[in-house]
Amino acid sequence: MTTPELFQWSGVRSGVKSSGDPDLALCRCENPATVAGVFTGNTFAAAPVREASKRLLEHSTFRGLVVNSGVANAATGQRGMEDNRRMIGKAAECLGVDETEVLSASTGHIGEYLDLERIGGSLPEAGDALGPDVDDFSTAITTTDTSRKITHRELPELDATVTGIAKGAGMIRPHMATMLAFVFVDRPVEGAWWQRRLEDAVRNSFNRITVDGEMSTNDTVLAFAADRSGIDPVGPDHEGADRLTGALNDVTGELARMIVRDGEGATRLLEVSVTGAPSDLIANDVADSIAGSNLLKAALHGGDPNWGRIFSAVGATERDVNPETTTITMDGFTVYDGSGELRETPEELEERMATEEEHTVTVDLGQGSASTRRLTCDLTEEYVRINSDYEP
Amino acid sequence: MTTPELFQWSGVRSGVKSSGDPDLALCRCENPATVAGVFTGNTFAAAPVREASKRLLEHSTFRGLVVNSGVANAATGQRGMEDNRRMIGKAAECLGVDETEVLSASTGHIGEYLDLERIGGSLPEAGDALGPDVDDFSTAITTTDTSRKITHRELPELDATVTGIAKGAGMIRPHMATMLAFVFVDRPVEGAWWQRRLEDAVRNSFNRITVDGEMSTNDTVLAFAADRSGIDPVGPDHEGADRLTGALNDVTGELARMIVRDGEGATRLLEVSVTGAPSDLIANDVADSIAGSNLLKAALHGGDPNWGRIFSAVGATERDVNPETTTITMDGFTVYDGSGELRETPEELEERMATEEEHTVTVDLGQGSASTRRLTCDLTEEYVRINSDYEP
Repeated sequence: MTTPELFQWSGVRSGVKSSGDPDLALCRCENPATVAGVFTGNTFAAAPVREASKRLLEHSTFRGLVVNSGVANAATGQRGMEDNRRMIGKAAECLGVDETEVLSASTGHIGEYLDLERIGGSLPEAGDALGPDVDDFSTAITTTDTSRKITHRELPELDATVTGIAKGAGMIRPHMATMLAFVFVDRPVEGAWWQRRLEDAVRNSFNRITVDGEMSTNDTVLAFAADRSGIDPVGPDHEGADRLTGALNDVTGELARMIVRDGEGATRLLEVSVTGAPSDLIANDVADSIAGSNLLKAALHGGDPNWGRIFSAVGATERDVNPETTTITMDGFTVYDGSGELRETPEELEERMATEEEHTVTVDLGQGSASTRRLTCDLTEEYVRINSDYEP
Repeated sequence: MTTPELFQWSGVRSGVKSSGDPDLALCRCENPATVAGVFTGNTFAAAPVREASKRLLEHSTFRGLVVNSGVANAATGQRGMEDNRRMIGKAAECLGVDETEVLSASTGHIGEYLDLERIGGSLPEAGDALGPDVDDFSTAITTTDTSRKITHRELPELDATVTGIAKGAGMIRPHMATMLAFVFVDRPVEGAWWQRRLEDAVRNSFNRITVDGEMSTNDTVLAFAADRSGIDPVGPDHEGADRLTGALNDVTGELARMIVRDGEGATRLLEVSVTGAPSDLIANDVADSIAGSNLLKAALHGGDPNWGRIFSAVGATERDVNPETTTITMDGFTVYDGSGELRETPEELEERMATEEEHTVTVDLGQGSASTRRLTCDLTEEYVRINSDYEP
């Protein structure tokens, strides 16, 4: 696949990760890029998140991005803020752009300082390695991810390409359900419109997935749209607005799906749909309760069509839901229909649950027209093992 | 230990549990007993919960209790309500009391009907087995529990004994964090006072524990206080009020602790204290966020003093908390002090975490005087295994 013109990426090993895996990523844009951003709602946001939010208010265009993995630079107080600015300064130098034109993001262990010696020492190498390929960049931003998360959309009508790159794995829940995601497009945009489009896209993608209900201190989504001289920016009244919005939604949606599929320890996917809700609030609460149920996710892991755990999760919202108007469907089979007249679990459903990797649950509350969706994965022994961290 | 006079208990095997374990429990009170009750907040409450709530409004004294395990009688619609009343009717017959004097509770699989043939057929045997020992009763109400949960308090000043019996294991979270708990005392009480005391006791015990954040459809706490002719009831102005309240709090607190200790797959206990909160709401939100963190509970399992996960959980409440005024202490060692000046994790803490079973976390928000506590356990591979239910 081709990547957007005007951008270059690289990823190198700084030695911050004790595994020796790539952990330092750099991106440069030839022209100023309009950047939209969405960040974690965590009140204890990490230094790079606090700095990037501030910079997006102060400037609207940027030309560089530096990302380190292994250390989150969270819970690091004033020194963390200064360390982050120093990393940005050094990156700007290596990118040949102004210090104010660079954004940063970090992911990794909370409660450790950035190793500026290692990072600073490796940034020149990262600068030299810049090129049109995103693979090294996408590898260097990962932590417990087992696969790279990259997706592209070509927009020939706009003479543009959209590339999205993300890292996920753990600490994934709705309301910034990602660690880091970056979108790049070689097409100018109107800034306010681009920000609204990104917020919409995040709401329908990263905010609809959950791995473990944890909200990290570092979640960051940034969308870079590069200026091109003589080309009009895409905005609300542009004929290409819908196409670019569609590509942005596609890219964030696909990255979100990749994040769940590669959730820590995950082996199975579950798509939860809630329909017939009296309000968006109740639809969201019911969907979060189902997608967040450890018990259901353990049953999913075991291939057990245990719909009682879905029933219980709906009522556990303590919302105005009614067991007599509620219908529960698993993989297309109605398992509870509101009458409380129980039926045998169909053999075909048992078999599907035991053997297939992707499953659906639909809960129709029978009380209105609001609806929503969530995508989640199973809870596995491997998730516990990864996060128990049996280090000596 | 002696049990309260006037009460008799039994537990038998009805065959509802495919394992053949005891699954039917009966209790009889010689005199009418004033009963206070607290039930699950789950909107999809099971038939026995709906029936018992109704009966507590209609009558204030009862003489019998029937409990079955293996089937929750939840999601069973109108038939579930009728089945429950039939079980109560048959129990009343075997207890030799009126049908209106009996309460019931169920625990087990959601989405199955009661097997009335088996239960009805075994109730006469349960009636014949009634005696002053609570062991069989307490065994017959369990599901995935690995131990019996019984505790007693003697109150010689009131010539009374308080006995508490509970079952727990899974689907345990604050706001009715228990499946079933029963308290018995051979001392008359004033009904309204007794109900308030039980609600207080539940708030400080069962509502402060969490195993997996799940809220069951069947949670029930009932406190039976038997009438004795010529003995004045304990009420707010009685000189024994504090003693009886203290015993009730002790008994429910100890049962709550037993439930967490025997949480599904649990091997370690964590007591979470939140202090210095600007409001009760924020204290509770922060405590729930920490005690509900899968990541922290997996780290607890691995003996990893990963305080970053505590830090992240505090901020994840999205409440008005401040990282600069917050202090985090683990097992008495300050690991984060608000300055963001990081320190090495003390070796003694590393060692304690690696070897000890009981741990404490204190988060001082440094912003007020509200505080609360939670008790929780670790998240283990065994929890996932138990709930994956690899049945053929």
